[in-house]
Amino acid sequence: MNDKNAVVLLSGGLDSSTTAAIARDSGYLLNCLTFDYGQRHAHELNSARAVAAYLNAGKHLTLKIELDKIGGSALTDNIKVPKNRDAAGIERCIPITYVPARNTIFLSYALAYAEVSGAEHIFIGINSVDYSGYPDCRPEYIRAFEQMASLALKKTVEGTMSVKIHTPLIEMTKAEIIKKGVELGMDFSLTYSCYDPSPEGLACGRCDSCMLRLKGFEEAGFKDPLKYRD
Amino acid sequence: MNDKNAVVLLSGGLDSSTTAAIARDSGYLLNCLTFDYGQRHAHELNSARAVAAYLNAGKHLTLKIELDKIGGSALTDNIKVPKNRDAAGIERCIPITYVPARNTIFLSYALAYAEVSGAEHIFIGINSVDYSGYPDCRPEYIRAFEQMASLALKKTVEGTMSVKIHTPLIEMTKAEIIKKGVELGMDFSLTYSCYDPSPEGLACGRCDSCMLRLKGFEEAGFKDPLKYRD
Repeated sequence: MNDKNAVVLLSGGLDSSTTAAIARDSGYLLNCLTFDYGQRHAHELNSARAVAAYLNAGKHLTLKIELDKIGGSALTDNIKVPKNRDAAGIERCIPITYVPARNTIFLSYALAYAEVSGAEHIFIGINSVDYSGYPDCRPEYIRAFEQMASLALKKTVEGTMSVKIHTPLIEMTKAEIIKKGVELGMDFSLTYSCYDPSPEGLACGRCDSCMLRLKGFEEAGFKDPLKYRD
Repeated sequence: MNDKNAVVLLSGGLDSSTTAAIARDSGYLLNCLTFDYGQRHAHELNSARAVAAYLNAGKHLTLKIELDKIGGSALTDNIKVPKNRDAAGIERCIPITYVPARNTIFLSYALAYAEVSGAEHIFIGINSVDYSGYPDCRPEYIRAFEQMASLALKKTVEGTMSVKIHTPLIEMTKAEIIKKGVELGMDFSLTYSCYDPSPEGLACGRCDSCMLRLKGFEEAGFKDPLKYRD
Protein backbone atom coordinates (compact mmCIF):
# COMPACT_ATOMS: atom_id res chain seq x y z
CA MET A 1 0.00 0.00 0.00
CA ASN A 2 1.30 3.41 -0.99
CA ASP A 3 -0.78 6.22 0.47
CA LYS A 4 0.16 8.45 -2.45
CA ASN A 5 -0.94 5.95 -5.07
CA ALA A 6 -4.01 7.07 -7.03
CA VAL A 7 -6.25 5.72 -9.75
CA VAL A 8 -7.27 8.51 -12.12
CA LEU A 9 -10.17 8.11 -14.54
CA LEU A 10 -8.83 9.70 -17.70
CA SER A 11 -10.94 10.13 -20.83
CA GLY A 12 -8.50 12.48 -22.55
CA GLY A 13 -11.00 15.33 -22.29
CA LEU A 14 -10.41 18.68 -20.67
CA ASP A 15 -11.95 17.84 -17.29
CA SER A 16 -10.29 14.50 -16.65
CA SER A 17 -6.93 15.82 -17.88
CA THR A 18 -7.11 18.75 -15.47
CA THR A 19 -8.10 16.31 -12.72
CA ALA A 20 -5.02 14.20 -13.50
CA ALA A 21 -2.85 17.32 -13.42
CA ILE A 22 -4.29 18.23 -10.01
CA ALA A 23 -3.60 14.70 -8.67
CA ARG A 24 -0.06 14.87 -9.99
CA ASP A 25 0.46 18.34 -8.50
CA SER A 26 -0.74 16.98 -5.11
CA GLY A 27 2.07 14.42 -5.21
CA TYR A 28 0.12 11.32 -6.22
CA LEU A 29 1.56 8.56 -8.38
CA LEU A 30 -0.88 8.21 -11.27
CA ASN A 31 -2.44 4.91 -12.34
CA CYS A 32 -4.56 6.16 -15.22
CA LEU A 33 -7.64 4.22 -16.33
CA THR A 34 -9.28 4.88 -19.70
CA PHE A 35 -12.36 3.25 -21.19
CA ASP A 36 -12.92 2.43 -24.82
CA TYR A 37 -16.70 2.11 -24.69
CA GLY A 38 -17.82 2.08 -28.28
CA GLN A 39 -18.14 5.82 -28.17
CA ARG A 40 -18.06 7.57 -31.51
CA HIS A 41 -15.18 9.82 -30.57
CA ALA A 42 -12.43 7.21 -30.38
CA HIS A 43 -9.93 10.03 -30.94
CA GLU A 44 -10.26 10.63 -27.21
CA LEU A 45 -8.25 7.45 -26.65
CA ASN A 46 -5.25 9.00 -28.36
CA SER A 47 -5.67 12.11 -26.24
CA ALA A 48 -5.79 9.98 -23.09
CA ARG A 49 -2.51 8.30 -24.03
CA ALA A 50 -0.88 11.65 -24.80
CA VAL A 51 -2.08 13.22 -21.54
CA ALA A 52 -0.96 10.22 -19.43
CA ALA A 53 2.49 10.43 -21.02
CA TYR A 54 2.62 14.22 -20.58
CA LEU A 55 1.85 13.86 -16.86
CA ASN A 56 4.35 11.03 -16.42
CA ALA A 57 1.78 8.48 -15.24
CA GLY A 58 3.26 5.34 -13.67
CA LYS A 59 0.70 3.14 -15.41
CA HIS A 60 -2.01 3.61 -17.99
CA LEU A 61 -4.62 0.91 -18.48
CA THR A 62 -7.20 1.09 -21.28
CA LEU A 63 -10.19 -1.25 -20.98
CA LYS A 64 -12.74 -2.04 -23.65
CA ILE A 65 -16.26 -2.00 -22.28
CA GLU A 66 -19.34 -2.70 -24.39
CA LEU A 67 -21.65 0.10 -23.26
CA ASP A 68 -22.80 0.36 -26.87
CA LYS A 69 -24.51 -3.03 -26.53
CA ILE A 70 -26.61 -1.68 -23.66
CA GLY A 71 -27.49 1.51 -25.53
CA GLY A 72 -29.73 4.31 -24.33
CA SER A 73 -27.45 7.23 -25.21
CA ALA A 74 -26.52 9.42 -28.16
CA LEU A 75 -22.85 8.74 -27.44
CA THR A 76 -23.19 5.05 -28.15
CA ASP A 77 -26.39 4.86 -30.26
CA ASN A 78 -27.14 6.38 -33.62
CA ILE A 79 -29.20 9.25 -32.20
CA LYS A 80 -28.29 12.64 -33.65
CA VAL A 81 -26.03 14.67 -31.34
CA PRO A 82 -27.72 18.06 -30.63
CA LYS A 83 -25.89 21.09 -32.01
CA ASN A 84 -25.63 24.80 -31.25
CA ARG A 85 -27.48 24.64 -27.92
CA ASP A 86 -26.50 27.45 -25.55
CA ALA A 87 -25.41 26.71 -21.98
CA ALA A 88 -28.92 27.39 -20.65
CA GLY A 89 -30.37 24.92 -23.16
CA ILE A 90 -27.82 22.32 -22.15
CA GLU A 91 -28.56 22.80 -18.48
CA ARG A 92 -32.36 22.79 -18.81
CA CYS A 93 -32.66 19.05 -19.26
CA ILE A 94 -30.74 15.86 -18.76
CA PRO A 95 -28.81 15.70 -22.03
CA ILE A 96 -29.54 12.84 -24.42
CA THR A 97 -25.79 12.17 -24.26
CA TYR A 98 -26.40 10.79 -20.75
CA VAL A 99 -25.12 7.21 -20.58
CA PRO A 100 -27.03 5.08 -18.04
CA ALA A 101 -24.97 4.33 -14.94
CA ARG A 102 -21.79 5.37 -16.73
CA ASN A 103 -19.95 6.82 -13.75
CA THR A 104 -21.06 3.88 -11.61
CA ILE A 105 -19.52 1.47 -14.11
CA PHE A 106 -16.36 3.61 -14.39
CA LEU A 107 -15.95 3.91 -10.62
CA SER A 108 -16.54 0.18 -10.15
CA TYR A 109 -13.62 -0.62 -12.44
CA ALA A 110 -11.57 2.06 -10.69
CA LEU A 111 -12.33 0.28 -7.41
CA ALA A 112 -11.05 -3.04 -8.78
CA TYR A 113 -7.94 -1.33 -10.15
CA ALA A 114 -7.44 0.49 -6.84
CA GLU A 115 -7.50 -2.73 -4.81
CA VAL A 116 -5.06 -4.46 -7.17
CA SER A 117 -2.75 -1.40 -7.28
CA GLY A 118 -2.93 -0.72 -3.55
CA ALA A 119 -4.30 2.76 -4.30
CA GLU A 120 -6.48 4.36 -1.65
CA HIS A 121 -7.39 7.34 -3.80
CA ILE A 122 -9.59 7.57 -6.89
CA PHE A 123 -9.78 10.80 -8.89
CA ILE A 124 -12.72 11.51 -11.18
CA GLY A 125 -13.27 14.75 -13.09
CA ILE A 126 -17.00 15.13 -12.65
CA ASN A 127 -18.59 18.48 -11.96
CA SER A 128 -22.08 19.39 -10.95
CA VAL A 129 -22.01 22.92 -12.39
CA ASP A 130 -21.91 22.46 -16.16
CA TYR A 131 -23.47 18.98 -15.96
CA SER A 132 -26.18 19.52 -13.39
CA GLY A 133 -28.47 17.18 -15.31
CA TYR A 134 -26.31 14.10 -14.74
CA PRO A 135 -27.41 12.38 -11.52
CA ASP A 136 -24.06 10.64 -11.14
CA CYS A 137 -22.14 13.93 -11.09
CA ARG A 138 -23.45 15.03 -7.68
CA PRO A 139 -21.65 14.94 -4.31
CA GLU A 140 -24.42 12.87 -2.66
CA TYR A 141 -23.95 10.19 -5.32
CA ILE A 142 -20.19 10.11 -4.72
CA ARG A 143 -20.62 9.80 -0.94
CA ALA A 144 -23.04 6.88 -1.46
CA PHE A 145 -20.53 5.22 -3.78
CA GLU A 146 -17.76 5.61 -1.19
CA GLN A 147 -20.02 4.10 1.47
CA MET A 148 -20.74 1.12 -0.80
CA ALA A 149 -17.01 0.79 -1.62
CA SER A 150 -16.15 0.55 2.07
CA LEU A 151 -18.21 -2.67 2.18
CA ALA A 152 -17.23 -4.08 -1.22
CA LEU A 153 -13.53 -4.91 -1.14
CA LYS A 154 -11.49 -7.55 0.63
CA LYS A 155 -9.00 -4.92 1.82
CA THR A 156 -11.60 -2.36 2.94
CA VAL A 157 -13.48 -5.03 4.90
CA GLU A 158 -10.24 -6.38 6.40
CA GLY A 159 -9.46 -2.79 7.42
CA THR A 160 -6.13 -2.65 5.59
CA MET A 161 -7.33 -0.08 3.07
CA SER A 162 -9.89 2.68 2.70
CA VAL A 163 -11.09 4.27 -0.50
CA LYS A 164 -11.48 8.01 -0.95
CA ILE A 165 -13.01 9.39 -4.12
CA HIS A 166 -11.65 12.81 -5.06
CA THR A 167 -13.73 15.12 -7.23
CA PRO A 168 -11.59 18.27 -7.35
CA LEU A 169 -13.68 19.85 -10.13
CA ILE A 170 -17.09 19.22 -8.65
CA GLU A 171 -17.80 22.86 -7.72
CA MET A 172 -15.85 24.48 -10.55
CA THR A 173 -17.16 26.13 -13.68
CA LYS A 174 -15.58 25.23 -17.01
CA ALA A 175 -13.68 28.55 -16.94
CA GLU A 176 -12.29 27.79 -13.48
CA ILE A 177 -11.24 24.31 -14.62
CA ILE A 178 -9.39 25.79 -17.58
CA LYS A 179 -7.68 28.41 -15.40
CA LYS A 180 -6.59 25.68 -12.97
CA GLY A 181 -5.24 23.54 -15.81
CA VAL A 182 -3.30 26.43 -17.30
CA GLU A 183 -1.91 27.29 -13.84
CA LEU A 184 -0.64 23.68 -13.51
CA GLY A 185 0.94 23.77 -16.96
CA MET A 186 -1.53 21.38 -18.58
CA ASP A 187 -1.15 21.31 -22.36
CA PHE A 188 -4.77 21.57 -23.49
CA SER A 189 -3.85 21.00 -27.13
CA LEU A 190 -3.51 17.32 -26.14
CA THR A 191 -7.05 17.13 -24.77
CA TYR A 192 -10.21 16.36 -26.65
CA SER A 193 -13.91 16.68 -25.89
CA CYS A 194 -16.03 16.70 -29.08
CA TYR A 195 -19.08 14.39 -29.25
CA ASP A 196 -19.10 14.46 -33.07
CA PRO A 197 -15.61 14.82 -34.57
CA SER A 198 -14.73 14.63 -38.28
CA PRO A 199 -13.19 11.36 -39.52
CA GLU A 200 -9.74 12.96 -39.15
CA GLY A 201 -10.54 13.75 -35.52
CA LEU A 202 -11.20 17.48 -35.75
CA ALA A 203 -13.66 18.82 -33.18
CA CYS A 204 -17.00 20.10 -34.53
CA GLY A 205 -17.19 23.24 -32.38
CA ARG A 206 -20.97 22.99 -32.14
CA CYS A 207 -21.97 20.00 -29.97
CA ASP A 208 -22.74 20.54 -26.26
CA SER A 209 -19.24 19.52 -25.26
CA CYS A 210 -17.50 21.84 -27.74
CA MET A 211 -19.87 24.73 -26.89
CA LEU A 212 -19.12 24.39 -23.16
CA ARG A 213 -15.41 24.11 -23.82
CA LEU A 214 -15.28 27.17 -26.09
CA LYS A 215 -17.42 29.21 -23.70
CA GLY A 216 -15.09 28.14 -20.86
CA PHE A 217 -11.97 29.25 -22.69
CA GLU A 218 -13.62 32.57 -23.56
CA GLU A 219 -14.63 33.18 -19.94
CA ALA A 220 -11.21 32.11 -18.66
CA GLY A 221 -9.59 34.61 -21.04
CA PHE A 222 -7.49 32.01 -22.87
CA LYS A 223 -7.46 30.85 -26.45
CA ASP A 224 -8.36 27.16 -26.94
CA PRO A 225 -5.26 25.61 -28.55
CA LEU A 226 -7.41 22.85 -30.14
CA LYS A 227 -7.96 22.86 -33.92
CA TYR A 228 -11.65 22.97 -34.89
CA ARG A 229 -13.26 21.79 -38.11
CA ASP A 230 -15.14 25.00 -38.96
CA MET B 1 -41.84 0.64 -17.25
CA ASN B 2 -43.08 -2.87 -16.50
CA ASP B 3 -43.07 -3.60 -12.81
CA LYS B 4 -42.53 -7.28 -13.52
CA ASN B 5 -39.48 -6.67 -15.70
CA ALA B 6 -36.23 -7.95 -14.16
CA VAL B 7 -32.55 -8.00 -14.98
CA VAL B 8 -31.01 -11.31 -13.91
CA LEU B 9 -27.25 -11.75 -13.62
CA LEU B 10 -26.69 -15.18 -15.12
CA SER B 11 -23.30 -16.88 -15.20
CA GLY B 12 -24.63 -20.28 -16.18
CA GLY B 13 -23.62 -21.70 -12.79
CA LEU B 14 -25.85 -23.45 -10.33
CA ASP B 15 -26.58 -20.43 -8.13
CA SER B 16 -27.40 -17.87 -10.83
CA SER B 17 -29.49 -20.43 -12.74
CA THR B 18 -31.56 -21.18 -9.63
CA THR B 19 -31.90 -17.43 -9.07
CA ALA B 20 -33.22 -17.02 -12.61
CA ALA B 21 -35.67 -19.89 -12.05
CA ILE B 22 -36.90 -18.19 -8.85
CA ALA B 23 -37.38 -14.87 -10.69
CA ARG B 24 -39.28 -16.64 -13.46
CA ASP B 25 -41.42 -18.51 -10.93
CA SER B 26 -42.26 -15.18 -9.25
CA GLY B 27 -43.69 -13.95 -12.57
CA TYR B 28 -40.85 -11.72 -13.73
CA LEU B 29 -39.95 -11.26 -17.38
CA LEU B 30 -36.25 -12.11 -17.58
CA ASN B 31 -33.62 -9.85 -19.15
CA CYS B 32 -30.55 -12.01 -18.58
CA LEU B 33 -27.10 -10.47 -18.42
CA THR B 34 -23.96 -12.58 -18.75
CA PHE B 35 -20.32 -11.49 -18.61
CA ASP B 36 -17.48 -12.88 -20.63
CA TYR B 37 -14.63 -11.67 -18.43
CA GLY B 38 -11.59 -13.51 -19.60
CA GLN B 39 -12.35 -16.26 -17.10
CA ARG B 40 -10.80 -19.61 -17.81
CA HIS B 41 -14.09 -21.47 -17.75
CA ALA B 42 -15.62 -19.99 -20.91
CA HIS B 43 -17.83 -23.09 -21.09
CA GLU B 44 -20.02 -21.23 -18.59
CA LEU B 45 -21.09 -18.95 -21.44
CA ASN B 46 -22.69 -21.88 -23.26
CA SER B 47 -24.41 -22.89 -20.04
CA ALA B 48 -25.74 -19.35 -19.61
CA ARG B 49 -27.21 -19.41 -23.11
CA ALA B 50 -28.80 -22.83 -22.51
CA VAL B 51 -30.27 -21.79 -19.15
CA ALA B 52 -31.68 -18.50 -20.55
CA ALA B 53 -33.35 -20.43 -23.36
CA TYR B 54 -34.64 -23.12 -20.95
CA LEU B 55 -36.25 -20.42 -18.78
CA ASN B 56 -37.71 -18.60 -21.77
CA ALA B 57 -35.88 -15.33 -21.10
CA GLY B 58 -37.20 -12.34 -23.08
CA LYS B 59 -33.67 -11.07 -23.70
CA HIS B 60 -30.15 -12.34 -23.09
CA LEU B 61 -27.24 -9.94 -23.36
CA THR B 62 -23.62 -11.13 -23.11
CA LEU B 63 -21.00 -8.44 -22.51
CA LYS B 64 -17.24 -8.80 -22.81
CA ILE B 65 -15.44 -7.18 -19.91
CA GLU B 66 -11.68 -7.15 -19.51
CA LEU B 67 -11.30 -8.07 -15.85
CA ASP B 68 -8.29 -10.15 -16.85
CA LYS B 69 -6.40 -6.93 -17.66
CA ILE B 70 -6.91 -5.75 -14.07
CA GLY B 71 -5.89 -9.09 -12.58
CA GLY B 72 -5.63 -9.97 -8.93
CA SER B 73 -7.49 -13.30 -9.03
CA ALA B 74 -6.95 -16.97 -9.84
CA LEU B 75 -9.98 -16.88 -12.11
CA THR B 76 -8.39 -14.40 -14.48
CA ASP B 77 -4.65 -14.74 -13.68
CA ASN B 78 -2.40 -17.74 -14.06
CA ILE B 79 -2.40 -18.59 -10.36
CA LYS B 80 -3.03 -22.28 -9.65
CA VAL B 81 -6.62 -23.01 -8.62
CA PRO B 82 -6.62 -24.77 -5.21
CA LYS B 83 -7.87 -28.36 -5.24
CA ASN B 84 -9.44 -30.82 -2.80
CA ARG B 85 -10.07 -28.27 -0.03
CA ASP B 86 -12.95 -29.22 2.24
CA ALA B 87 -15.78 -26.79 2.96
CA ALA B 88 -14.14 -25.68 6.23
CA GLY B 89 -10.91 -24.95 4.38
CA ILE B 90 -12.78 -22.94 1.77
CA GLU B 91 -14.60 -20.91 4.39
CA ARG B 92 -11.54 -20.21 6.57
CA CYS B 93 -10.14 -17.55 4.30
CA ILE B 94 -11.11 -15.27 1.47
CA PRO B 95 -10.52 -17.56 -1.51
CA ILE B 96 -7.82 -16.62 -4.00
CA THR B 97 -10.54 -16.91 -6.62
CA TYR B 98 -11.88 -13.59 -5.26
CA VAL B 99 -12.11 -11.06 -8.10
CA PRO B 100 -11.68 -7.46 -6.87
CA ALA B 101 -14.96 -5.52 -7.00
CA ARG B 102 -16.50 -8.16 -9.25
CA ASN B 103 -20.07 -7.93 -7.98
CA THR B 104 -19.82 -4.14 -7.95
CA ILE B 105 -18.87 -4.18 -11.63
CA PHE B 106 -21.59 -6.74 -12.43
CA LEU B 107 -24.29 -4.81 -10.56
CA SER B 108 -23.22 -1.54 -12.19
CA TYR B 109 -23.81 -3.00 -15.64
CA ALA B 110 -27.09 -4.49 -14.40
CA LEU B 111 -28.09 -0.99 -13.30
CA ALA B 112 -27.42 0.42 -16.77
CA TYR B 113 -29.32 -2.46 -18.36
CA ALA B 114 -32.18 -1.99 -15.88
CA GLU B 115 -32.59 1.68 -16.71
CA VAL B 116 -32.55 1.00 -20.47
CA SER B 117 -34.95 -1.96 -20.12
CA GLY B 118 -37.27 -0.20 -17.68
CA ALA B 119 -36.63 -2.96 -15.15
CA GLU B 120 -37.01 -2.08 -11.48
CA HIS B 121 -35.73 -5.43 -10.25
CA ILE B 122 -32.25 -6.91 -10.36
CA PHE B 123 -31.66 -10.53 -9.34
CA ILE B 124 -28.20 -11.74 -8.29
CA GLY B 125 -27.42 -15.22 -7.00
CA ILE B 126 -24.98 -14.35 -4.24
CA ASN B 127 -25.04 -16.11 -0.93
CA SER B 128 -23.27 -15.37 2.29
CA VAL B 129 -23.28 -18.95 3.61
CA ASP B 130 -20.93 -20.88 1.34
CA TYR B 131 -19.05 -17.72 0.31
CA SER B 132 -18.72 -15.95 3.64
CA GLY B 133 -15.25 -14.74 2.65
CA TYR B 134 -16.47 -12.57 -0.22
CA PRO B 135 -17.19 -9.05 1.08
CA ASP B 136 -19.51 -8.29 -1.83
CA CYS B 137 -21.78 -11.26 -1.02
CA ARG B 138 -23.15 -9.74 2.20
CA PRO B 139 -26.55 -8.09 2.79
CA GLU B 140 -24.99 -4.86 4.10
CA TYR B 141 -23.06 -4.50 0.85
CA ILE B 142 -26.24 -5.02 -1.21
CA ARG B 143 -28.15 -2.40 0.83
CA ALA B 144 -25.31 0.10 0.29
CA PHE B 145 -25.36 -0.63 -3.45
CA GLU B 146 -29.14 -0.03 -3.59
CA GLN B 147 -28.71 3.24 -1.73
CA MET B 148 -26.06 4.35 -4.22
CA ALA B 149 -28.26 3.21 -7.14
CA SER B 150 -31.12 5.39 -5.92
CA LEU B 151 -28.86 8.41 -6.50
CA ALA B 152 -27.17 7.21 -9.70
CA LEU B 153 -29.80 7.00 -12.44
CA LYS B 154 -31.78 9.58 -14.35
CA LYS B 155 -35.02 7.69 -13.70
CA THR B 156 -34.39 7.04 -10.01
CA VAL B 157 -33.52 10.70 -9.44
CA GLU B 158 -36.54 11.84 -11.47
CA GLY B 159 -38.61 9.53 -9.28
CA THR B 160 -40.04 7.50 -12.17
CA MET B 161 -38.21 4.33 -11.19
CA SER B 162 -36.74 2.62 -8.16
CA VAL B 163 -34.24 -0.22 -8.11
CA LYS B 164 -34.58 -3.24 -5.88
CA ILE B 165 -31.82 -5.82 -5.73
CA HIS B 166 -33.10 -9.32 -5.02
CA THR B 167 -30.77 -11.89 -3.47
CA PRO B 168 -33.07 -14.90 -2.97
CA LEU B 169 -30.16 -17.26 -2.18
CA ILE B 170 -28.37 -15.06 0.32
CA GLU B 171 -29.29 -17.12 3.41
CA MET B 172 -29.41 -20.52 1.71
CA THR B 173 -26.91 -23.36 1.86
CA LYS B 174 -25.84 -25.04 -1.35
CA ALA B 175 -28.12 -27.98 -0.51
CA GLU B 176 -31.09 -25.66 -0.04
CA ILE B 177 -30.33 -23.93 -3.34
CA ILE B 178 -30.28 -27.28 -5.12
CA LYS B 179 -33.54 -28.39 -3.49
CA LYS B 180 -35.17 -25.12 -4.52
CA GLY B 181 -33.92 -25.49 -8.10
CA VAL B 182 -35.17 -29.07 -8.34
CA GLU B 183 -38.55 -27.98 -6.90
CA LEU B 184 -38.83 -25.33 -9.65
CA GLY B 185 -37.93 -27.84 -12.36
CA MET B 186 -34.50 -26.39 -13.10
CA ASP B 187 -32.45 -28.69 -15.33
CA PHE B 188 -29.08 -28.69 -13.53
CA SER B 189 -27.42 -30.66 -16.33
CA LEU B 190 -27.39 -27.33 -18.22
CA THR B 191 -25.50 -25.51 -15.46
CA TYR B 192 -21.80 -25.31 -14.92
CA SER B 193 -19.55 -24.19 -12.08
CA CYS B 194 -16.01 -25.59 -12.41
CA TYR B 195 -13.05 -23.21 -11.98
CA ASP B 196 -10.73 -25.53 -13.90
CA PRO B 197 -12.51 -27.55 -16.62
CA SER B 198 -10.86 -29.80 -19.20
CA PRO B 199 -10.46 -28.41 -22.72
CA GLU B 200 -13.66 -30.25 -23.71
CA GLY B 201 -15.48 -28.50 -20.87
CA LEU B 202 -15.76 -31.34 -18.37
CA ALA B 203 -15.80 -30.24 -14.72
CA CYS B 204 -12.77 -31.24 -12.60
CA GLY B 205 -14.72 -32.30 -9.50
CA ARG B 206 -11.95 -31.06 -7.20
CA CYS B 207 -11.80 -27.24 -7.24
CA ASP B 208 -13.62 -25.26 -4.52
CA SER B 209 -16.61 -24.69 -6.75
CA CYS B 210 -16.97 -28.38 -7.74
CA MET B 211 -16.41 -29.51 -4.13
CA LEU B 212 -19.17 -27.21 -2.84
CA ARG B 213 -21.50 -28.29 -5.65
CA LEU B 214 -20.97 -32.02 -5.07
CA LYS B 215 -21.32 -31.63 -1.31
CA GLY B 216 -24.54 -29.68 -1.92
CA PHE B 217 -26.04 -32.38 -4.11
CA GLU B 218 -25.08 -35.02 -1.58
CA GLU B 219 -26.68 -33.09 1.28
CA ALA B 220 -29.78 -32.33 -0.78
CA GLY B 221 -30.14 -36.04 -1.55
CA PHE B 222 -29.98 -35.65 -5.32
CA LYS B 223 -27.53 -36.92 -7.89
CA ASP B 224 -25.65 -34.17 -9.77
CA PRO B 225 -26.61 -34.68 -13.45
CA LEU B 226 -23.35 -33.02 -14.59
CA LYS B 227 -20.62 -35.14 -16.21
CA TYR B 228 -17.27 -34.93 -14.37
CA ARG B 229 -13.79 -35.57 -15.74
CA ASP B 230 -12.65 -38.08 -13.12
